[in-house]
Order: sequence, then structure tokens, then C-alpha cells
Amino acid sequence: MVMEFYFDLILKEAWKFQALTLPNPAVGALVLDKYGKILSLQAHKQAGKPHAEVLALQEAYCELTSDKRIFELEESREIHQFLKENAKNIFEDCTLYVSLEPCLNEGKTPSCAKLLAELKIKEVCIATKDVNALASGGAEFLESLGISVIKAWELEELQTIHKKAEELLFPFVCLQNKGSFVLFKYASRLNGSIEGGQISSPKMQEFMHNIRAISQTLLISGKTIREDNPTLDTRFATFKDKKNPNVVILTKMQNFPKTAPLFDVPLRKIEIVSKIPKLKGFVFCEGGSEFLKTLKPYCDLLLLLISPRFSAEFQKIMQIEANCKILHTQMVGEDLALWLQL
Amino acid sequence: MVMEFYFDLILKEAWKFQALTLPNPAVGALVLDKYGKILSLQAHKQAGKPHAEVLALQEAYCELTSDKRIFELEESREIHQFLKENAKNIFEDCTLYVSLEPCLNEGKTPSCAKLLAELKIKEVCIATKDVNALASGGAEFLESLGISVIKAWELEELQTIHKKAEELLFPFVCLQNKGSFVLFKYASRLNGSIEGGQISSPKMQEFMHNIRAISQTLLISGKTIREDNPTLDTRFATFKDKKNPNVVILTKMQNFPKTAPLFDVPLRKIEIVSKIPKLKGFVFCEGGSEFLKTLKPYCDLLLLLISPRFSAEFQKIMQIEANCKILHTQMVGEDLALWLQL
Repeated sequence: MVMEFYFDLILKEAWKFQALTLPNPAVGALVLDKYGKILSLQAHKQAGKPHAEVLALQEAYCELTSDKRIFELEESREIHQFLKENAKNIFEDCTLYVSLEPCLNEGKTPSCAKLLAELKIKEVCIATKDVNALASGGAEFLESLGISVIKAWELEELQTIHKKAEELLFPFVCLQNKGSFVLFKYASRLNGSIEGGQISSPKMQEFMHNIRAISQTLLISGKTIREDNPTLDTRFATFKDKKNPNVVILTKMQNFPKTAPLFDVPLRKIEIVSKIPKLKGFVFCEGGSEFLKTLKPYCDLLLLLISPRFSAEFQKIMQIEANCKILHTQMVGEDLALWLQL
Repeated sequence: MVMEFYFDLILKEAWKFQALTLPNPAVGALVLDKYGKILSLQAHKQAGKPHAEVLALQEAYCELTSDKRIFELEESREIHQFLKENAKNIFEDCTLYVSLEPCLNEGKTPSCAKLLAELKIKEVCIATKDVNALASGGAEFLESLGISVIKAWELEELQTIHKKAEELLFPFVCLQNKGSFVLFKYASRLNGSIEGGQISSPKMQEFMHNIRAISQTLLISGKTIREDNPTLDTRFATFKDKKNPNVVILTKMQNFPKTAPLFDVPLRKIEIVSKIPKLKGFVFCEGGSEFLKTLKPYCDLLLLLISPRFSAEFQKIMQIEANCKILHTQMVGEDLALWLQL
């Protein structure tokens, strides 16, 4: 198959964990053996956990050796160490595809570029450059050691892949460049209706609570408290070290019940503001038409969660004027999530 | 990779041509070489054209031999003949994945099962059995010749794949079992709004006109003529032998202009009825809420075409009550198509 095929596989795998990896980028990777067989397909899942390349090498190691001990390791540092000790030579004919330039620096986890160099992997195909000055330089480092590096951004036939990789990286780039990534989420039914209580399925709620759990701030309006009276906690999140993000309530009138359940969630700061404050870190916004209209100039992406039903009873829909680009769609249980660029 | 991975690839490839292959089923196929490398990934595209297996073998032959002459052939019979003459032994270590049991009979095109047998392919992995009595028996035939056959429907770990393959096959099964497949299509914006003229992009119109071009009947309501005054032709279709399907207008009042452009389309029969007639063949329905409500008991699938924009001006949405299952989503240009089971 052509290179686009493998790049597409890793980009789609990475999108499954979009936003969940923040403040790290969403990244996908796969390993091909010397005959071109796919040995692994992996994505980075959460900051602090192993990078996509490391997970792909871990899975590929087991495929090549049938040595399952490597799956007992969860810490990136341990997997790096294990591979350096046990995977001598076995990757020398292999190709690694990765959606982002492998990191050269040692951050929370060791350098991926250095691991690839030590394993003497034959070829590394990269969809886009790292914009983070600290971590970048991996491609040049690998090339300087004689490893073949395919850089999608330099090849005309891979410009579409490069563009898709940049779209995948967009939330990370927002954080890097302007210090914030602002994601607005709302849920609707197939016919667009947004009223009538809980719309999303339990699986989608879990997905959404996982995103909440890694956001720094939940930004909502006074109207949301008045109308939905939400708890805005992370009780359905499956992330181990989940926390309840701080809440910022944007309101002019302050006419909402100060005894709403969201005020009872422990270990949370709540701020009530009358103007949009300086947005910092990963800001997750939830609300309706009016709130989206207010926040639109600040919104980086829109996450639309569609439940697979029609309602004849509820007819209220989002009232905004906007052209979007659909960056990615994914099923989450029986519901559909759309990532939209406004 | 595990078998599910390859089955998922061919199912997704086949969905791209859902309905477009009718009265044939949508089918996907791929070939792995002896090392497990993917040599090809293909889908059946239109009735009368080569089956998915034949296209996958054609592409795989070129990958293995670099002999591009095979791509000069478009007729299934020619490709069968070429492979039988030129591909002796080269597929003996290969595995073919296919979403539907290879046909045993000679129909418009020669038997796929017999071709696979003659090429002495090592293994055939099949997602679901053929329900067509005329074409079925391919799996047993291959097994009787000593070819390894993996049948997803017999393996517990492949039940999800089998179910997905049945969903893919559903339109074909409707035609087989009840003599009709009824597809209702409508277009909306991201916020659900359906008013305000042409909603779909040119790419989506082309997709939709291709579906129209292979349907036997367009079923619409008098209200659609009154409000949209459509031509209901296939001018944007890219299918070579495209035709303009017959139109059935369901109306009680007959209060629509008899000079509407759809009456001027040549070589078309138009029937005006006051009750839902006996539906036969592939019936493509287009309309709004009221019409969908009327047709819902007869509808096999719903095709929702979503344009990537929000409208503040247009707020009218589909007013029906229904729970659906999202069977498949696909990007068509910048728009999104959802295949829904009502």
C-alpha cells in the first residue's frame, strides 16, 4: 500500500484520543516489519503515559518475539529500558510511521528519537514537524545517524497527509502558541434538537467526563446553571487520576441558585465573572446558542455530540451563523462525536 | 494485526459504495501476501463491474509482479482470464479477506470462488454468508478443495465483525427478501436546519445523483414539488450509463404545478398516486418531516447528508420521533453522510 494508507491509519488512531492527551499532542504510530506487515498500531493516550512511538514499538516487539513480558510494563521509562536491553537488532529492518516528529528531549518520559536511534530502526516516516522548540530536532537527529527519514511536509504527494496531521495537532499548537485551547461542547439529537434533559448515552458521558477531567477550567454561563443545574463533576470519567476542574461562571445578572450542586463538588475553585476572563490552559466550555455566540471569537474547536435519535417534541436548536470544517468524526458507543473547526 | 483489523478495513472500504452497487451487494476485499503485508484493498463499485475479490486480486497481482498490463483491463471476464493465465502460483501463499462469501455461480461475471480455487489461494477469510441461493456455496466449495476458510459467523471472537458485515449487506438483503430496498434521504445543516434552498455541496450532490442514477424509482410528495420545484434528474452523476429514474408522486390533493421541471426530463415515467403503491426494486425517497412520517413504516434506511454549517436564520428541523442506529458515517467532500437504521 502507498504511504498515505499508513499515515491515514495512524491519524485516525490518534484522533480517538484527541484532547485527552493535553497538554501533550495527540499522536499515532505504527510499525511495519521488513516485509511490510503491520506489527502494531497505537496512539498516545494521556500526558505522562508512553508516547505513541513507544507503544507501537512495545506491541511490535511482542509480535516479533512473542515475548509478552513487555506488556507488564506501563511506565514509559521501563519500556524504553526493556527495549534497549532486549530488542537489539530486531527493529533494524523495520519502518515506523508517526504523525509527529519523535521528541528529541527528555521530558516526563525519555527521548523517542534516541530510542529509535539506539534500536537502529531502518526508516521513520513523519507526518508533521514538532512546533515545540524543546522537543523538536528529532528528524534531523535521526538523519544525522544515517536513518532514512521521510518527511511528509517536504513531499508534494504527502501534502494532504501533512495538512491532516496539522489538524490533528491543532489543539496542542493552540496551547503552545497562545497558552490556551478553548473547546466548546454541546450535545444534540440527529435532528439538531438540544432540549429535553440528558441527551448523550452513558458511553458518551464517560468520554466527555474524561475530557473534563483533564481540562483546567470549565467555562459555563449563569443560564446553564439556571436551566440545567449541572454538577459538572467527573463521576463517569475512567481516568485514574481524575480531578474536578475549576469552574468559571460567566454571568451579568448573577441570577442563578448559589446552592446548585456544582458548588458542592470538593477541591474545586469557582469564579464568577461578568466579562470573559483571560483564558489559560485547556478551557472546556459547555452551553447553548447564546453562550456559543458569545464565545465564538475565542473558540478553537467545537465538539458536537450527536445522539442517534429524533425528537418530535423538542424543536429548539442551536441558533448561530457559522461555516465549519469537519475535522474528524468518531463513534463513541452508539453516539457520534464531530470535531469541528469554526 | 488481529483478523478484526483487516475485516474492519474491508467493511469501511465497502461502505463507500453502499447503495451504489445495487442490485448487487456492497462488498470489500483485501489480499495479504505470505508475510502478512497488505497488497490491495478494494470494493465492488457498481453492478456488472468486477467483484471486490477480483479487484483486490488485480491490484495484488500488480504489487507482486509489477506487471501493470492487468490495469488495462476493466471487464471482469478479462481480468479473470488474465489472472488464470498469468498468476499461476503467485497467490499460493496469500490470504484473501472478503466481507461476503465469494460467489460460486456464473452471473454477469464469472465465479469468484472458482477463480480463487484455480489460483490456489492459501486462505479465504469471510465475514458473512451469502443469502442469495443462486450465488452461495462458495465457502464450502473452497473448503472441499482444501483451501483454508475462516468463517466469521462460526467464530465467537468475530461475532462483532459478522454483525457489521450483515449491516453492510442489509440493503441487498432487503432487495432479496422483500423485493424492495427503500432509502429515505434528506439534507440538513449541522444544527439540524433543513430549509433555505440547496444545502449539500457539489461533491455531495454528485454522490446523491449517482445513487439516484441507479435507483428504479424516485418517490416524492406533492409538497416537495410545490416547495422545492425540483428537476430530480441525474445531471451531476458521474456514472457512465446513468439514467433518470422514474418518479412516483404521492399526493392527495394534486395541488402542484404540472409544468414543474421534473416533468420535462426525457425518458422517464411519472406516476401520480394517492396511496403508497407496492414498492419494488431500489426506491429512493426524498422529502421532509411529513413525508418521512408517512413513509417511516416502509423505510429500510435513512441517509442523512449534513452540510458543515450552522444557520441562525433557518430554524425548521425534522419533526419525527425515532430511535436510530448509526450504521456508518463517511465524508463526501466537505459534507458528512450518515447511514441510519430506523
